[in-house]
Amino acid sequence: MDDDAQIRRLVSERCAAMTRGDAQAIVDQYIPDAVVFSLAPPLRQPKDGTRDVATLQKWLDEKGGSVGSEVRDLEVTVGGDVAFCTGLERMGAPEGGPGGLWFRSTLGLRRVEGQWRIAHEHTSTPFYMDGSMRAAVDLLP
Amino acid sequence: MDDDAQIRRLVSERCAAMTRGDAQAIVDQYIPDAVVFSLAPPLRQPKDGTRDVATLQKWLDEKGGSVGSEVRDLEVTVGGDVAFCTGLERMGAPEGGPGGLWFRSTLGLRRVEGQWRIAHEHTSTPFYMDGSMRAAVDLLP
Repeated sequence: MDDDAQIRRLVSERCAAMTRGDAQAIVDQYIPDAVVFSLAPPLRQPKDGTRDVATLQKWLDEKGGSVGSEVRDLEVTVGGDVAFCTGLERMGAPEGGPGGLWFRSTLGLRRVEGQWRIAHEHTSTPFYMDGSMRAAVDLLP
Repeated sequence: MDDDAQIRRLVSERCAAMTRGDAQAIVDQYIPDAVVFSLAPPLRQPKDGTRDVATLQKWLDEKGGSVGSEVRDLEVTVGGDVAFCTGLERMGAPEGGPGGLWFRSTLGLRRVEGQWRIAHEHTSTPFYMDGSMRAAVDLLP
């Protein structure tokens, strides 16, 4: 399997792990000191705490043990042992109503011991610059 | 100059171009079909229009011809002709009050004809998941 296909599989396994509520499988995809910019504050997650299995499992369990997830328009760029990929991601309805929340997802990847791992995650919605400063949680791809 | 230093220089030139209001210099750093996730909607900017020099220059001129800009905590990851970098960026006060707006900035880069260029930009603030859905435009690094 070439690098592009391996990274697409990583993204699709990430979605599948969200959907079956498997925090361990999600966390195992990261390097330990990944730089994570999440949907929620702070600006940057603490390097040692964010991808904590227990915290993530608790969140998944609070959502009923499963959070629907899909990624659309995935573009992968690979160079040697470094890659990044971009896409639009849907998270099943914890915030965005019946259709779920669509947001932007960027992953920075490094190949470590032959395995692509997440070294950076940046997920976000834009916000309305109309004075309301509301997060744009109602956008569709 | 090694790749890490070249990319740090690209980021610092980007900030300098914002500060002196030079839209052409900013746009020249991008490849033509870059994937851009901006602070403002839509989810993804149109591939052919966003980095339009005239539009960006108009925005800069409306801000008085200069938008203060700095990047902190820059981390650069390079592999062959692909790289990504992450940092926290401040934009001088168009939205965030006297101190300016702090947001997260990720760039995906490709070396094209010996020159590092921006192939992907993702800038964002997180948002408060407290029911208000307000963009978190008041955070500090």
